Amino acid sequence: MKLIINKDDLLEGLQNVQKAVATKSNLAILSGILLETLSEDRVKIAATDLEIGIETIISGEVVEKGNIVLPARYLVDIVRKLDDSLIQINVDKQNNTADIHSGYFNMTIHGFSGEEFPVIPWVNEGFDCNLEQGMLKKMISQTVFATSHDESRPFLTGVLFSLQDKLRLVATDGHRLALREASFNSEVEERGVGAIIPSKAVNELIRLLDDEENKQVQVRIGENQVSFQIENVRLITRLIEGQFPSYQQVVPQGYKTRIKLNREELASALERASLIVRGESNIVKQVIQKDKLIITSNTPEIGKSSEEVACLLEGEEMQIAFNFKYFLDVLKVIESEEVTIDLTGSLSPGVIRPVGDDCYTYVIMPVRSH
Amino acid sequence: MKLIINKDDLLEGLQNVQKAVATKSNLAILSGILLETLSEDRVKIAATDLEIGIETIISGEVVEKGNIVLPARYLVDIVRKLDDSLIQINVDKQNNTADIHSGYFNMTIHGFSGEEFPVIPWVNEGFDCNLEQGMLKKMISQTVFATSHDESRPFLTGVLFSLQDKLRLVATDGHRLALREASFNSEVEERGVGAIIPSKAVNELIRLLDDEENKQVQVRIGENQVSFQIENVRLITRLIEGQFPSYQQVVPQGYKTRIKLNREELASALERASLIVRGESNIVKQVIQKDKLIITSNTPEIGKSSEEVACLLEGEEMQIAFNFKYFLDVLKVIESEEVTIDLTGSLSPGVIRPVGDDCYTYVIMPVRSH
Repeated sequence: MKLIINKDDLLEGLQNVQKAVATKSNLAILSGILLETLSEDRVKIAATDLEIGIETIISGEVVEKGNIVLPARYLVDIVRKLDDSLIQINVDKQNNTADIHSGYFNMTIHGFSGEEFPVIPWVNEGFDCNLEQGMLKKMISQTVFATSHDESRPFLTGVLFSLQDKLRLVATDGHRLALREASFNSEVEERGVGAIIPSKAVNELIRLLDDEENKQVQVRIGENQVSFQIENVRLITRLIEGQFPSYQQVVPQGYKTRIKLNREELASALERASLIVRGESNIVKQVIQKDKLIITSNTPEIGKSSEEVACLLEGEEMQIAFNFKYFLDVLKVIESEEVTIDLTGSLSPGVIRPVGDDCYTYVIMPVRSH
Repeated sequence: MKLIINKDDLLEGLQNVQKAVATKSNLAILSGILLETLSEDRVKIAATDLEIGIETIISGEVVEKGNIVLPARYLVDIVRKLDDSLIQINVDKQNNTADIHSGYFNMTIHGFSGEEFPVIPWVNEGFDCNLEQGMLKKMISQTVFATSHDESRPFLTGVLFSLQDKLRLVATDGHRLALREASFNSEVEERGVGAIIPSKAVNELIRLLDDEENKQVQVRIGENQVSFQIENVRLITRLIEGQFPSYQQVVPQGYKTRIKLNREELASALERASLIVRGESNIVKQVIQKDKLIITSNTPEIGKSSEEVACLLEGEEMQIAFNFKYFLDVLKVIESEEVTIDLTGSLSPGVIRPVGDDCYTYVIMPVRSH
């Protein structure tokens, strides 16, 4: 293989696929990035850890076709540090080495044959749809943080993509649940399409998606895999098997207490109360009175705090305690100026919603405060 | 004690002293910061780990005099997170607790009596001089990185401040030596004044010093301690005992090979060569020929590199190998466009100097390359 490639194009391509490189695999070749010529001016760059695969196509002058797998940890740093804009890569097929040449710099680096690189399996059949990149990015960022890290319940470690009358993204770790809905134009059979996508893949997807709303991402949901095509970058990931909890039943209907208050004021007050909180349950208590929410925390060996936040109350006064972390997580991803909190009792889940946006619902379990 | 204090003043004061707080002490009180009223509008803030002490005086409305020591890790975060600009601190002397009140926020936090806080010993007698803050800051940043981390030779873990005909700062870890000189106007007795200042204290000093050249720092070097007074902040540190190596003998006189080359080009080439270097000795080889320096690296299991950097040679051609880290360290703190490298042999120390600045000398030991 002989290539002449623009530094910025190569670096962008490498950075796009880099996160799929295996970091802890026994297969040495998976710590590498595949470079493969496709035609006289197109080069494929790919990486996979056998769960996620990312590939992209960049332009370059192909002098001689071929392929090589080069160790990601050296390749990306080397390309980043080059001063000159043109890079020449010459592969010695017999020794599986590549000469990287740029300006007065020359490096020979050991790699693997591209033929031994595992093929990222293609999603042949499945449900196809196009989504807006900016919308999907926002939907993911408002749900993925609620996934579980507990590998003993794998179906909670991913985000549910559910397509029916609406597109719904749902994530829960058993302590809180985030549900984001969006209207959806494609036709879906009545029982709908659902897939649990591993949180790692979803986080990589966020990185690849553009904020702009008018750019599209092509999604194909297959039996065991899903693919996302974002311009010239494709991400493929396995799906998580198992039955996602029926989230509709988790969202309480109605309320006894509803308060409306400023999101940033609430977040600041919770942050201050949390500063002295120690221990796993992270308890911050909330007392709701006529026109104020009183937030208190108490760690006997350190100290205690109390703060009032103005609110509008509809319904009964109430006392409840939450893990502040679960509360702060959601206040960071909501964009509205105000939020509502609906409660039905001190030991029943609360529901947080952004005011003026009925597509987002966050359910949070209270904790016993003594 | 009762205080009303401006948030920004208090935060700045706390941040100035915070780095002197003990992080691993058995004495719980040393993890705190002392607040002590001095007059009706002045409050002292102080912290010490018994090696370094930092204290500062801020203005505030003293309603009732007194003192308290509050845990640094909570106090600084709490003050930083407050929205309101005015903070009220009320101390309950009997329980050693403080109420921190601001806006609708109230926190009670446990502390210690200020009377039990160790007094930061005052440097009563010593050699006094004034230095320009910007100059001292630059002198420190060009030397402190060369100190040793080896506690078995404590006198190498600090920076030598030597005052005689000139002010000299010197640091060495046995592999390289950094020497920065500056002209100096105060009168010093003939045998001079010298002090080895721990690198931690010197690093804190950098943080407190202003870049501006026209601001002064008052220095007092005592028998066992040194103090630096920077406006209303004072840093006091113990000195390291022992005899600093006679650095004059380490700097080679004359050269067989002198090259002059662009500093940034050299640094970039060294960084690229270093990317594949593994192992403790960090060897990068340099071959000096008529008009070029050839930098090579080789790690058999990864690959090898070679790059040419243009240079002006005076004297003999030469081959030598260095630890690239020691080389890159100095190229980062030099500001000149070009540097000279003087060599007398493949196994003799090299000398790096910025072109156009004869106040800085960096000596670096070569390594055997096979």
